[in-house]
Amino acid sequence: MNEFELIESFFAANTPARNDVITGIGDDAAILAVPPGQQLVTTTDVLVAGIHFPENTEPEDIGYKSLAVSLSDLAAMGATPAWFTLTLCLPAVDEDWLAAFSRGLFTLARDYELALVGGDTVRGPLVIGVQAHGFVPEGEALLRSGAGVGDTIYISGTLGAAAIGLLTRQGKLDLTVTERQNAQAKLDRPLPRVREALALRACVSACIDISDGLIADLGHILIASDVGARVQLSQVPVDPVCVAHASGDERWRLALTRGDDYELCFTVPPAKQNQFESIADSNPGLYSAIGEIEAAPGLRLVDGNGKIVQLPATGHNHFAHASGC
Amino acid sequence: MNEFELIESFFAANTPARNDVITGIGDDAAILAVPPGQQLVTTTDVLVAGIHFPENTEPEDIGYKSLAVSLSDLAAMGATPAWFTLTLCLPAVDEDWLAAFSRGLFTLARDYELALVGGDTVRGPLVIGVQAHGFVPEGEALLRSGAGVGDTIYISGTLGAAAIGLLTRQGKLDLTVTERQNAQAKLDRPLPRVREALALRACVSACIDISDGLIADLGHILIASDVGARVQLSQVPVDPVCVAHASGDERWRLALTRGDDYELCFTVPPAKQNQFESIADSNPGLYSAIGEIEAAPGLRLVDGNGKIVQLPATGHNHFAHASGC
Repeated sequence: MNEFELIESFFAANTPARNDVITGIGDDAAILAVPPGQQLVTTTDVLVAGIHFPENTEPEDIGYKSLAVSLSDLAAMGATPAWFTLTLCLPAVDEDWLAAFSRGLFTLARDYELALVGGDTVRGPLVIGVQAHGFVPEGEALLRSGAGVGDTIYISGTLGAAAIGLLTRQGKLDLTVTERQNAQAKLDRPLPRVREALALRACVSACIDISDGLIADLGHILIASDVGARVQLSQVPVDPVCVAHASGDERWRLALTRGDDYELCFTVPPAKQNQFESIADSNPGLYSAIGEIEAAPGLRLVDGNGKIVQLPATGHNHFAHASGC
Repeated sequence: MNEFELIESFFAANTPARNDVITGIGDDAAILAVPPGQQLVTTTDVLVAGIHFPENTEPEDIGYKSLAVSLSDLAAMGATPAWFTLTLCLPAVDEDWLAAFSRGLFTLARDYELALVGGDTVRGPLVIGVQAHGFVPEGEALLRSGAGVGDTIYISGTLGAAAIGLLTRQGKLDLTVTERQNAQAKLDRPLPRVREALALRACVSACIDISDGLIADLGHILIASDVGARVQLSQVPVDPVCVAHASGDERWRLALTRGDDYELCFTVPPAKQNQFESIADSNPGLYSAIGEIEAAPGLRLVDGNGKIVQLPATGHNHFAHASGC
């Protein structure tokens, strides 16, 4: 075995077992059994050091986050995660780095009983690829295209803490120890909302995960569903650490356009509202209603008086001609 | 849309359509329908410039080969290709490069009616990832572990031309125009043996594709099947361009240990021999019987007199203590 085959055997030895893995790591490809009546859901993500995570991120956190971003995509589809493959492009074989990376990776994999079924390890610049596979009962996947006029728009959790965590990691903000730990945990160890999405699947009309910021990601739902939306800024749950360390336009820029929060943004039709609330009651405070789907295209952010707010340019076209709030 | 979303829409517009793609590019993940009674077969490969292809490879050939290596893995499993995802890590957005890359990619995708169903495009060093998915009737996949004592070992095509193509590309060999075209086509545009594998599936006991060289790849079959093998060197179909431009140990090193030929190596049990020959007859000259599976572990290369031949060290452990032939 060469060093890369050794690495692969190291990862293979750590994977959770599953009965639906007919042949896992060690042949030319994996053989997997999708349960009858279920559709396959598959997503792929690439993470590059310095772009998707700061260069000084701990390898254990890189391992965790590499898988978390793909699980968040499966969550956004309402899919049950099952298997993943991993491609590692490594500048050198550093055993300590690999042990820490795999510790973070398998912490999350074990939590969701996700089996590593294949991969490829090569020498090159540090680039990590994860392909995650899950399944969903036929026709029950949550698409971006299902939002209807009158649906209520919800998001899970809070927004803006990951952006604060990044600024802190970059040495641009000075936080208390507790604040720093919380914000960097949100940046490094986002919780993919898999279980939440499965519980909500029957009462959600459209869903996406917030990886690029609420404005961009809700925008994807609006375009795919051919609708518009009105969002009450006062209802958007900005994380307390973002409230404490950013104000005015900067606060909204961090909370609405920076992404990396990996919360869910979804819509609930009026007819499913009661069902949604009975599910939401088991997680008090987790979901915030932030607005409503409307027929007129575009996203309107409004203040407490219902007045449309223009945020300054943020890099998103939505604000290309804005004038500040 | 940012430039990377534009790229993704460009690829999406070029993909062949398939009825079993329920939701393709454009949501958080793809939704795919595996036919009833079939198992999912999935493989992933990463290609790095300067390692998996010479830096001066044409982008159209890079696109073709990126998909070909994954299709070759599906072929080695006896799987029918169906879908693929693509991750592109690009130093810059170069429209000419992308147009040529996608031309090569979709030439092959269209040939096998393979749909692109997702991907991720990011800025970074040039690294290409392909994940190919197919299916196989339950229990009919070709594994490395199925070889039995007495089975005949076959390979498709010829070996060594890709290695000559690489030496030529590196400026280390001087070939005629026709020779160079043939050798570089074998290097840049290997033909994944998908259709051949599907035709042979019922009469093959073990199979692998030759990506790392016959000795290493047949070695994987022997270890997985817990058997050994005797290979007649005189029966190994060395490509004429390799015969013409390499001799002695060097010829065997190129033909047996360099890989990149993407031919199939497989075993046929005695009871399936007639069935195999009737299929092979429709492709005269394509398959060569090169040896036999034996009980004693290890790979024995023998000359025309049945004498075991030791090849000089090749970087593979098999030859760590060899003394030259």
